[in-house]
Amino acid sequence: MTDTMRVIGSLLELAGQYEDRLPDLPPQPEAPAGAALAGLIDHTLLKPETTAAQVKQLCAEALKFKFATVCVNPAFVPLAAGLLRGGGVGVCAVVAFPLGASLPESKAAETRGVIQMGATEVDMALNIGALKGEAYGLALEDIRRVVEEAHAGAAQVKVIIEAALLTRREKVIACLLCREAGAAFVKTSTGFGPGGATVEDVALMRRVVGSGMGVKAAGGIRTLADALSMLRAGANRLGASAGVSILEEAGVK
Amino acid sequence: MTDTMRVIGSLLELAGQYEDRLPDLPPQPEAPAGAALAGLIDHTLLKPETTAAQVKQLCAEALKFKFATVCVNPAFVPLAAGLLRGGGVGVCAVVAFPLGASLPESKAAETRGVIQMGATEVDMALNIGALKGEAYGLALEDIRRVVEEAHAGAAQVKVIIEAALLTRREKVIACLLCREAGAAFVKTSTGFGPGGATVEDVALMRRVVGSGMGVKAAGGIRTLADALSMLRAGANRLGASAGVSILEEAGVK
Repeated sequence: MTDTMRVIGSLLELAGQYEDRLPDLPPQPEAPAGAALAGLIDHTLLKPETTAAQVKQLCAEALKFKFATVCVNPAFVPLAAGLLRGGGVGVCAVVAFPLGASLPESKAAETRGVIQMGATEVDMALNIGALKGEAYGLALEDIRRVVEEAHAGAAQVKVIIEAALLTRREKVIACLLCREAGAAFVKTSTGFGPGGATVEDVALMRRVVGSGMGVKAAGGIRTLADALSMLRAGANRLGASAGVSILEEAGVK
Repeated sequence: MTDTMRVIGSLLELAGQYEDRLPDLPPQPEAPAGAALAGLIDHTLLKPETTAAQVKQLCAEALKFKFATVCVNPAFVPLAAGLLRGGGVGVCAVVAFPLGASLPESKAAETRGVIQMGATEVDMALNIGALKGEAYGLALEDIRRVVEEAHAGAAQVKVIIEAALLTRREKVIACLLCREAGAAFVKTSTGFGPGGATVEDVALMRRVVGSGMGVKAAGGIRTLADALSMLRAGANRLGASAGVSILEEAGVK
């Protein structure tokens, strides 16, 4: 029995126990108010028709409001990294996005590429078909290789599980695989799937990963109320295209 | 003035002429009837939740009906190539799919990777944001690098322009860039965008690229009538998940 098989075996055992009873939700920090909320938001623009002019505006907004990062497709990482340099705003690049069905070596190479161009965080899509087909070793290795590349470049990895496509058991296993592989965050959704972040999924993910990992809610977060409900449910990072209007709702000018 | 600038200049001049008057539709070959129709269809399964078991069934169907290729995400290329070896059915892998917004070097590396694993055709997504932002040199170079990798591996490239996101002028320029870069086909849609193949787009694309290149219609082709109308409009390859039922409608058992 290989090490990977042993690891998978104990994850599945844990997933089995969690079907009966999940760990309690760890105590959540109070959500920051007003301008400080920006530090929890990845200011996001991922539509395929996005132009350089729009990414420039995104970066200007990020510098003004001090968002955590701008989250863009790899093709815009060089532009965003240049505009944000020294401004205290990170560059988050999506990898194998949004389907997650690339070869593991392509995911690793794309991670290396975006970090070389200036990305500080990588949001990779899980190999969902591997999870659903119970090829857990493949799904784990796929994340591990991206995490290794990212750590070599001092970047952190969020793994998008696309919760709307998963059963409850698959969501639990996905979170356990991400934690095992050394990812920094689990993330609910790509925003291109059949559903976005839900309070229920965020709470489930937080209960599975505990307090030692991040949970990013993304997909359909459009208002301050949406944002606050995700934070209360256990998220500590939000992905949104509506960051500016969310902050304006919070009274930030 | 660089060579690329000169090339782009003459493509834009041509696009300007085509705003007034497109070349006529070249004479179309008669659509093959019955079982021979399969040879024009890429038997396709690209949903992120696809499992290995489903790809095995897809390949079995492709061998039975003699589809042109099986079109899958990169993660399933090794499996499909193994199952189809020697069976006269190609393996078509999508690259930078469906957003097209990867780094050019990632697209090239992913192309190299899928060909090493057995892909015989590559369907890459165009850098749509570069086209819309009028960064035509970047859009052209992006295609060229994939074509170079593919040709080195004896594979051919189809470029997905995601027509539903483009203006008429952008569609014309996209087709001219693909032809200039040495792609074998232009392809209408990813199937993940806001619209699929239309008769109007297929005819436009065929009129722009002429008879020396392929036109692949994909996205929303579900019936024999859909398939035949795309072929009559100028397509010579179809991408469909419904290939088996289309053939059954055509009387193939």
